[in-house]
Parts: sequence; structure tokens; C-alpha cells
Amino acid sequence: MKKLPDIKNDFSGWYNEVIYDAELVDQSPVRGCMVIRPYGYAIWEQIQSTLDARIKATGHANASFPLLIPESFLKKEAQHVEGFAPELAIVTHAGGKELEEPLVIRPTSETIIHHMFARWIQSWRDLPLKINQWANVIRWEMRTRPFLRTTEFFWQEGHTAHETHEEADQEVKMMLQEYVNLAQDYLAVPVFTGLKTEHEKFPGAEKTMTFEAFMPDGKALQMGTSHLLSQSFAHAFDMKFQNRAEQQAYPYLTSWGATTRLIGALIMTHGDQKGLILPPKIAPIQVVIIPIFKAGFDSEQILAVAIDVKNKLTNNNIRVFIDDEEGKTPGAKFFKWELKGVPVRIEIGPKDIEQQQVVVADRVGLGKQFVQLSAIENTIKTLLETVQTTLFEKALARRQAMHCSTNFLSDFGPLLETHDSFYQTSWCRGASCETELKNYKASIRCIIGNATFAQCFHCKETSSCDVLVARSY
Amino acid sequence: MKKLPDIKNDFSGWYNEVIYDAELVDQSPVRGCMVIRPYGYAIWEQIQSTLDARIKATGHANASFPLLIPESFLKKEAQHVEGFAPELAIVTHAGGKELEEPLVIRPTSETIIHHMFARWIQSWRDLPLKINQWANVIRWEMRTRPFLRTTEFFWQEGHTAHETHEEADQEVKMMLQEYVNLAQDYLAVPVFTGLKTEHEKFPGAEKTMTFEAFMPDGKALQMGTSHLLSQSFAHAFDMKFQNRAEQQAYPYLTSWGATTRLIGALIMTHGDQKGLILPPKIAPIQVVIIPIFKAGFDSEQILAVAIDVKNKLTNNNIRVFIDDEEGKTPGAKFFKWELKGVPVRIEIGPKDIEQQQVVVADRVGLGKQFVQLSAIENTIKTLLETVQTTLFEKALARRQAMHCSTNFLSDFGPLLETHDSFYQTSWCRGASCETELKNYKASIRCIIGNATFAQCFHCKETSSCDVLVARSY
Repeated sequence: MKKLPDIKNDFSGWYNEVIYDAELVDQSPVRGCMVIRPYGYAIWEQIQSTLDARIKATGHANASFPLLIPESFLKKEAQHVEGFAPELAIVTHAGGKELEEPLVIRPTSETIIHHMFARWIQSWRDLPLKINQWANVIRWEMRTRPFLRTTEFFWQEGHTAHETHEEADQEVKMMLQEYVNLAQDYLAVPVFTGLKTEHEKFPGAEKTMTFEAFMPDGKALQMGTSHLLSQSFAHAFDMKFQNRAEQQAYPYLTSWGATTRLIGALIMTHGDQKGLILPPKIAPIQVVIIPIFKAGFDSEQILAVAIDVKNKLTNNNIRVFIDDEEGKTPGAKFFKWELKGVPVRIEIGPKDIEQQQVVVADRVGLGKQFVQLSAIENTIKTLLETVQTTLFEKALARRQAMHCSTNFLSDFGPLLETHDSFYQTSWCRGASCETELKNYKASIRCIIGNATFAQCFHCKETSSCDVLVARSY
Repeated sequence: MKKLPDIKNDFSGWYNEVIYDAELVDQSPVRGCMVIRPYGYAIWEQIQSTLDARIKATGHANASFPLLIPESFLKKEAQHVEGFAPELAIVTHAGGKELEEPLVIRPTSETIIHHMFARWIQSWRDLPLKINQWANVIRWEMRTRPFLRTTEFFWQEGHTAHETHEEADQEVKMMLQEYVNLAQDYLAVPVFTGLKTEHEKFPGAEKTMTFEAFMPDGKALQMGTSHLLSQSFAHAFDMKFQNRAEQQAYPYLTSWGATTRLIGALIMTHGDQKGLILPPKIAPIQVVIIPIFKAGFDSEQILAVAIDVKNKLTNNNIRVFIDDEEGKTPGAKFFKWELKGVPVRIEIGPKDIEQQQVVVADRVGLGKQFVQLSAIENTIKTLLETVQTTLFEKALARRQAMHCSTNFLSDFGPLLETHDSFYQTSWCRGASCETELKNYKASIRCIIGNATFAQCFHCKETSSCDVLVARSY
């Protein structure tokens, strides 16, 4: 059995191997694209169903818009095309002919969805219009890594239109909060929220809100964004409605998205030297049962107990898998399921059956325990909750340890490259100070509140806000 | 309120309007692509979740493969590329540069999935390998119609690999049967199953099984297919494994798919002059409740009963919507929800409240009834089942009436263009006789069994099998 690269000294190498060894992805013959294998895809399905339920509960409906967008659509919003043009994949030929107008594969769908919104929104009675789309998009990235940055990725993109600026702003904040709940309560990944700078915001937006996690190596991971687009796209797509005062008005738009990158975040946040650790709430398999067959003891009897335990847990909506593969040692099975990050393992051997008990182990090191068969449902339910909480607390504690408050770039800049830390500092909001961070391969991840320090981290003029600075994925 | 074109005299016009009026789709700015609106997409979500559960229950796992496929991959299987080349959309430029090798947008994913299968299948222990993908695909079609034939469409494509020809053949038949169950038990669309001819089979397959429905205008609709690919793709992709005899062998492959076309089938099969009729099992809204507000009677009291009824039904897993929109007459609401095909409507007015009852109407004309509030759950549950059965039976009866058994093309050929019928006849299996059907814009939809007539429909030589002949969508 192959060992993973050392997670402390070679975090990047560890990531690049664990995703293949745990059979989440495989190398694709198409540059920068992913082959997501069943185990990886099952994680995405868990995330999808959790988020989709919340998207619907907050009043949005799913719909579907074309993959291909006329090139001219992207050019309607000047900043938008400037932001995305370098990353576009372009269809020039189809059906054996050269196309009159090239079509781009959507890098995001604002333009085509806004074109449709302009048809659908005539009156204030048509508002708010709240649409979501689960889709694949393509952005031609130079350097790619599975889940974290890929040419093709999967996401949901929400697109809404509102009567007022305030209502649109509320929507942006509400969906950001839904993302935060998903990240923290389901993926067990603690996040900061805040505004992106003018330089980092979505091309064409008034403002972009982000939720950012910090990985064990101190690097930030932007997990998703929620944009207040305001009226720029509405003007570009001539989207007008008759308002309550019977005047023509432009609606206020938002968009928000989260991607398969979320999987990258939870792999990095929770994994250890043995492999993945999946938070129970989104683990495709929450409990693996390993029957320990012994010579001289009836295997069927052990398997019958395993099936009984599985049924009891399944009836409690717990996702269970029995690994009864033959010709493989229990040790090899432990190794496999630890690598795959299954949060709880149940072992059932001849001795346990005599004592009407099973052995329960967890993936976060709370300790092995014997559990009476009669108490199995409640014990496992509680244990899964404890594992979920423990993962979040461990991640939060580590993040707090990496979170440094330092005033001057001259102090923290050099540390950005050598320490697994990120820095809260104060900023004047000047673009040139922001640019200075490039010298350290770092950036402002988000604006998070009022200034702690009186001086800006670089120019030392009066500061205006606090920011989180880090290198990033 | 606008009337739909006459469904009897202008079925095609009826279809082309009902899909827009019922807000299933809207016109897309991209030629041949669909904008699927929330109500249409909700139908697709119902179909997806039903089929996805069966795909998983039959031992398949979902995964995801790249949208873009190197052009060279398609060329590896000679018949395959010949079949799909004319319909390909091709990406020639990306990231601001011309690509060294053009990429095609998948028209189907055999080639890229088989490339991966070749990596994953080493030993008989790796078999069977049973994968499914929910995806969008692009085929550059000349003439398109929403749901029925679109440039981009949505589907699931199953891809499996097996040790033996027999096991692969069983898989092909099993998944065909799953499709039949979906069509008949959920969509309430009766289907025939059978083999496609050599001319009509999937490019590269040994055989293609199909399930075909017949629309009210007598035209056939191919609802989906299940292919026994056998070993041609395995050879093309050098997919070898060590078999139980420790020899190198090629696996036997299958693929099978069903698309958003299923929605077209159920629209055409069940719709009437008033609009859609959705089978309860896949209707996004199974019951619409319409409170009848009257001057002088407390609206809140009516709404309270409506909510109570909704909760009772929701607790029984019935999908309910209360249309409490103000400023719209009950008549306008009836019209709207009839157009949208909601199978059951409940009306609640002041008189009903006094009598502790509601009025229940159904979309298939079983008749209005008064139902005591205390009996509402059971009555509605039974009614939904009855509507489901009624829809299937009506569709089956109509299909039987259109199903003619006629020996000679000279007799039934001219009728193909003038009558809403399809023809069961006998065939010699000769390609030139099959080609003759083009003179009547018809084709062999499927081979369905032994020959009824001794002579072939065209050459009058000895026949070998029965076929269904029809024009088609």
C-alpha cells in the first residue's frame, strides 16, 4: 500500500495524490478538464442536493439556458467582455460549415440570461425574478488543478432581478449567507465573508461579496461569490419595466455562484496523512461496515449481523456501505476507507457477535469503542454529529492560529512566502497599495470591516478599512 | 385569453404554441438551442429524479467526463465518426489562440469514456463497470423543434463494460426495460420496443434497441435507445483486460440514453385543446388550490382552509400550489392551470367552507365532485392514481386505433401521408426495400418480431420479420 506524500512538508504533493488515490478524479485527455469518478461525483451530488434545496426554499426556480452564446452578447457589457475575453473557448465551425458569427462556450451566463430577462420583465409585477441554473462552464485557464481551477467546471449560477437597489442588495447578502451555512454547517469549512476590491470584483458588477476559506498552508481559497450587478447589465440588454409609478425603469440585478471548487476546499481543510476526511453531512458513505471473517466461524452469521446493523442505520437515514469483498484483509480495508475519508467505521467479528456488540471507530481520532447492538442507532447518530462538529472546530482552531494581525507589509510581506499564515491589516483603498502585494504573490482576499490600524499597510497614509491578505489558490 | 390552434387540424401548430403559452420554453437567441423555463425544467427534474433512482438501483454510479473531446478520438471508430461528423460543433480557438488540435463538443461520450475505461479495466475483477452521466450534448441539427430535436439537448448516457457478450446483452435489455417502465408507468406513454435496422442503428454498435411511441398524428417518436456496442469500441480504444482464464480479452460494451425529448412525447401524447395534461407522477404541481374570494366573506378564512388542505396533502407527499394571486378571476386561474396541465384542481369558496367541503375537478374529465374536508387526503390520492391510469389507457386506446396491419407498401404507403396511422408489416430485411419507404417520408421504426405476412412489403419475396413503419419526428 502506497503512502501519500507528507502532508506537512509537501501539502501540494499530498493534494495532487490524494485526489487520485481516493478515486475522486482521474487524469483527463483534455487539457485542464476533469474526469470526476463516481466517488468524487457522489460528493458533488451531496453538495448539489443540499444547496439546491436551499435555493428553492429561498424562492428561486431552476431553469436552463444555452451552452453557446453569440460572441456579440459578451461585448454588450464592456467590463464583462474585457474580463472574460482572454478565457473564452470559441466555436467557429459547426454542421460542416464556418459559422457566420462565432459562438463562445459560456464562461458564465449573465449575458444570455439577461437577454431573456429583457423579454420576461415588463412590469413590476414580474419582479422579483429569481432563477438558478446548474451548469457546466468553460474558462480557458493557464494553470489548472482538479477541483481548484479547471477549464471546465460545474456550478450553479443564480440570476435575479429586483425593483430596488435595496432589495437586490438584500438578495446578494441572503445568498452569501446561504453559502456560508453550506460551507460551515455542511462542509465544516470556516469562512470569512467580505467585499472584493474594485480590482478583484466581477467584471461589470457594482460590488462582489465573497466567502473565503484558508487552507492549512495559509493560502486563501475563494469558495464562491455573490454579486450586486445593479443596472449596468440591465442597460446593456435594454431590460426595462414599468414601475409602480408607471414609469420605465431598469431593474437591479444580482448573480451568485458556487462551484466544484467546494470539493477542493473540503479535501484540503480536513484531510490528513491517511487521506481524505469527509464531513458526515456530505459524505456519500457515512458509515462503512467491515465484517471480520475468521476461519472456523460462520461468515454468514457475521454478514447477517452486518446487514442487520446496516438496515437499522439506513432506516435512520444514515448512508452505509458493507465492504464484504473477499480475499482482502481487514487491514487493507481499513486503509482503503480511511483513504476515502469515511467518517465512521464499524467492525464486526466473531467475538463481537458473542457479546452482542460491535467495534466503532471514527476518522477524527475520538477513539475506538465497543457499542452494544441495541444501542447502535443512537450511538452512531451522535457520533456522526460529533465528528461533524469536531471537524469544524479543528478547522476553526487552525485558522485562528494562522490569522495574524499586522500593520505593515514590510513586516508581513516576507512572512507570506515562508509562513503558513494570512494577515489582517488596514488599507487606504488605494489601487497602488493593493498592487504592491503582487511582489509577494499575495492579494487582498476581502474587505472585512473598519480599520484596526490607523495607517495603510503600504503607503502608511490614513487607512479606511481592514482587509485579509494572503496568497491564494 | 388566447386560444391554441386546433389540435385536430393543426397538431403541429398546437404543439408550437402550447410549449410557449404554458411557459415550458422560450425562444433562444442561439439557433436550435432551448431556453427551458422553470415550469419546463421542473418537469425535467421530475423525470431526472425518477430515472436517476432507477439507474442507481440497478447498480450504476454517476460520474462526469469532459464536454470537449479531441477530434482524433472520434476518428478512432470508423462508423462512429462517419455517423456524427456532419453534426459536430468544433472549438478551434481558446484562450486567445488557435488550438493545435480542434476539440469537438460531445455529440455523445462513447469515445472519451472508453478512453477512460481502458485505464480503469485491467482485470475481470474490474467488471462489470457501470457508469452513467447526466449531461448536455450538441448535435448540429438542420431543423429543430423544442424538446423534439434541438442542437443542444440534455440527457443521461449510460456506459457499461462486461466480461461476456451475454451479460452485455442482458444489460442492454434491462435498461431498455427501465426506460419502458419510465415511459409507461410515469409518463403514461405506451411504447413499442424492438431492434433498429442496420441502417438506423447507432454508428459503431452491433445492435440498437429502441422504444418508440406514436403520437396523435400517427408519427413515431423515438424516445430513447439502448445499444449493444460489443467489442468494436473496445478494439478502437485498446481496452483489454485479463480474463478468468488469465488471457487478454476485450470487454463487451453497452450504452443507452434518454433525453429531454421525453418531455416532447408527453406533451403530444396527453395534451388537449385546453393545453397540457401532465401525468400526476411527473407533474411538478399535482394539485392547484384556487381560493374563491367573495365580497362580504372573510378572505383570510378561505385562505386558512386552503393552507390547511395544502398541508394535509403535502404531508402525503403530494405537490401542491395555492394560487392566491389577487386581481385575477377564478376563471382566469382555471384557464391558466388547465393550460399548464395540472392534473387536479381544488376550489374553495365561502359556501364550501360552510359545508366543510371543497370542489375537486380533474384535468381528464372524470367530473367535478364535492369532497368533505375530512376525506380530502384519500380522495386526492386516489384521484391522482385514477388520472394517471386514465391518461395511459386513453393513450393506449388511441395508439391501438392507429395501429394497422397491412402487407404491401403499395397499399399503406399513400395512407402514411393522409392518415394518422402507422403500419405493421413484414420485411425481407433487404436494404433496398427499406429505402423504398423514403418515397413516403417514412422509415422502419423497429423490428418487432416474427413475420405476420409471408411476403415482404415491397419486393414480395419471403419475409423474415415484422416491422413498424411510420413517418417520424
